[in-house]
Amino acid sequence: MQQHFADRLTQRLRRLGHPLCVGLDPHLDRLPALFRRGSMSPTDPQTADAVEAFLVAILERIAPRVAVVKPQIAFFERLGWRGMRVLENVVRRARENKLLVLLDAKRGDIGSTASGYAEAYLGANAAIACDAMTLNPYLGRDTLTPFLDCAHQHGRGLFLLVKTSNSGSGDFQDRRLEEGGTVFEAVAEAMTESSQELRGSATGWSSLGVVVGATYPGQSERIRELLPHALFLVPGYGAQGGSAAAALKGFVRGDSGRLEGGIVNSSRGILFPPGSATDDSGRWERAIDEALTRSIDELSAAAAAPSDP
Amino acid sequence: MQQHFADRLTQRLRRLGHPLCVGLDPHLDRLPALFRRGSMSPTDPQTADAVEAFLVAILERIAPRVAVVKPQIAFFERLGWRGMRVLENVVRRARENKLLVLLDAKRGDIGSTASGYAEAYLGANAAIACDAMTLNPYLGRDTLTPFLDCAHQHGRGLFLLVKTSNSGSGDFQDRRLEEGGTVFEAVAEAMTESSQELRGSATGWSSLGVVVGATYPGQSERIRELLPHALFLVPGYGAQGGSAAAALKGFVRGDSGRLEGGIVNSSRGILFPPGSATDDSGRWERAIDEALTRSIDELSAAAAAPSDP
Repeated sequence: MQQHFADRLTQRLRRLGHPLCVGLDPHLDRLPALFRRGSMSPTDPQTADAVEAFLVAILERIAPRVAVVKPQIAFFERLGWRGMRVLENVVRRARENKLLVLLDAKRGDIGSTASGYAEAYLGANAAIACDAMTLNPYLGRDTLTPFLDCAHQHGRGLFLLVKTSNSGSGDFQDRRLEEGGTVFEAVAEAMTESSQELRGSATGWSSLGVVVGATYPGQSERIRELLPHALFLVPGYGAQGGSAAAALKGFVRGDSGRLEGGIVNSSRGILFPPGSATDDSGRWERAIDEALTRSIDELSAAAAAPSDP
Repeated sequence: MQQHFADRLTQRLRRLGHPLCVGLDPHLDRLPALFRRGSMSPTDPQTADAVEAFLVAILERIAPRVAVVKPQIAFFERLGWRGMRVLENVVRRARENKLLVLLDAKRGDIGSTASGYAEAYLGANAAIACDAMTLNPYLGRDTLTPFLDCAHQHGRGLFLLVKTSNSGSGDFQDRRLEEGGTVFEAVAEAMTESSQELRGSATGWSSLGVVVGATYPGQSERIRELLPHALFLVPGYGAQGGSAAAALKGFVRGDSGRLEGGIVNSSRGILFPPGSATDDSGRWERAIDEALTRSIDELSAAAAAPSDP
């Protein structure tokens, strides 16, 4: 059995000193000239090759400096089965480079279908073997069982959507309940027992994490109260408008005095920074390295900053 | 532009006289001896070939007798990229055979990711071009926009999860709101305007449909009140324990005097009926044909039955 997911992740984050997660969202229209091939239409076979070459080059640059990458599966599905083959190759490469892979799939389904998803991405004989994945809770607690089983049996991690970063996330997540609280609080509360059961012995953090948009810092703090040991996946940093300080709301001060308790994702800010749309490989590498340095420094400083008064 | 989805579907259902949708859920451990190849492990390349041969044979038997099939994408993802290639081939074959294809993907994501999913399965240049797909509403109304655009521009259909058929569906969907009603009623209410905008001129039914579990007939009737023109996708018929009469709760009597307003899905009951686990192709064909006849007759009779007093 593999070691506990939250322990593995937290230990790497502590060593690196920052919580940055790099999102692998290969937007076709932003792919640098250096990597473009053929028509770049999603259904052109050459497009999948271009995306793979781009992501493999990205992995090579970032692998020594970050703990975890988050491929967004929609961008691979957009390319059909060839895109899924790229995803399989990219995930394998990332793990060979000692990166943890958190698949952003937001799956949610019932019975044998939920088992199918769990086995596909987190099982012992997974087709695309990842370390963790994101899940949608709307269908109810029973639909999480096969994923929780993978977390327990194979050392995998889960990040459940609780409060998302989009402007419409309030439509249903923020509705007030007759019993008190909101829908997103009810989702968080329903996870307390499973979260507790999945705590790691080395760090105390749980392999049942939650997705909490950086655009709503007050709500991050509320979710932290409800789930003191859940790792947060904070997706709204950088391109989506959240600041480093906002992203770390809900993180807590560890023994070292630094904030910990989750990861902060940046996708476009790292993959497509200013100056990276070039045909010069040296210039492209510098642009990526600089974007990474900027985000790491910003998050690292925010994690070290003294508490609010 | 393709003709309006709900009009296309409803007109075919009227011609056939029954609302049966056949779910394509290729459970590996149930695949008949006739089609098994190699180890039947999900990651064995021969497994994908076996699944494709099985589903193509199924399509051939059912195409003249049903209007719509519902591939469950998890079972294809379970086989990795080769499974996605099978899905692409099966979807194309189904549409060549004049079947409508409703992809059961239950996707839900934000911004450019939602657009990626919409383009992948419903767009003009889709990688796997389907007629309709299922969606999860938890992330909010703004996340549905790219799918609604495909419905308007390309004549596609959407089926939104409102009340699912699993035992835990009440955990969040049934929570009572401070403003009155439940979470699932709030989801249904939030769709009234979009549902109205997507009504077809030929039949009056809307291309924005909803998923409503047959296991909760009282709630079906409530959703029908809120969304009088939404086609229902009722998934819990047959193997999941719902009866034909329960499945048609929430359907309404059309001009012909028969119940209409949705489709009723059966997966295992049609794909893996008693007697189909055989190595004799003639016997297998008879088993499939008989299972289909039984379900069609049962649903057809229920659709023709006089109203409850």
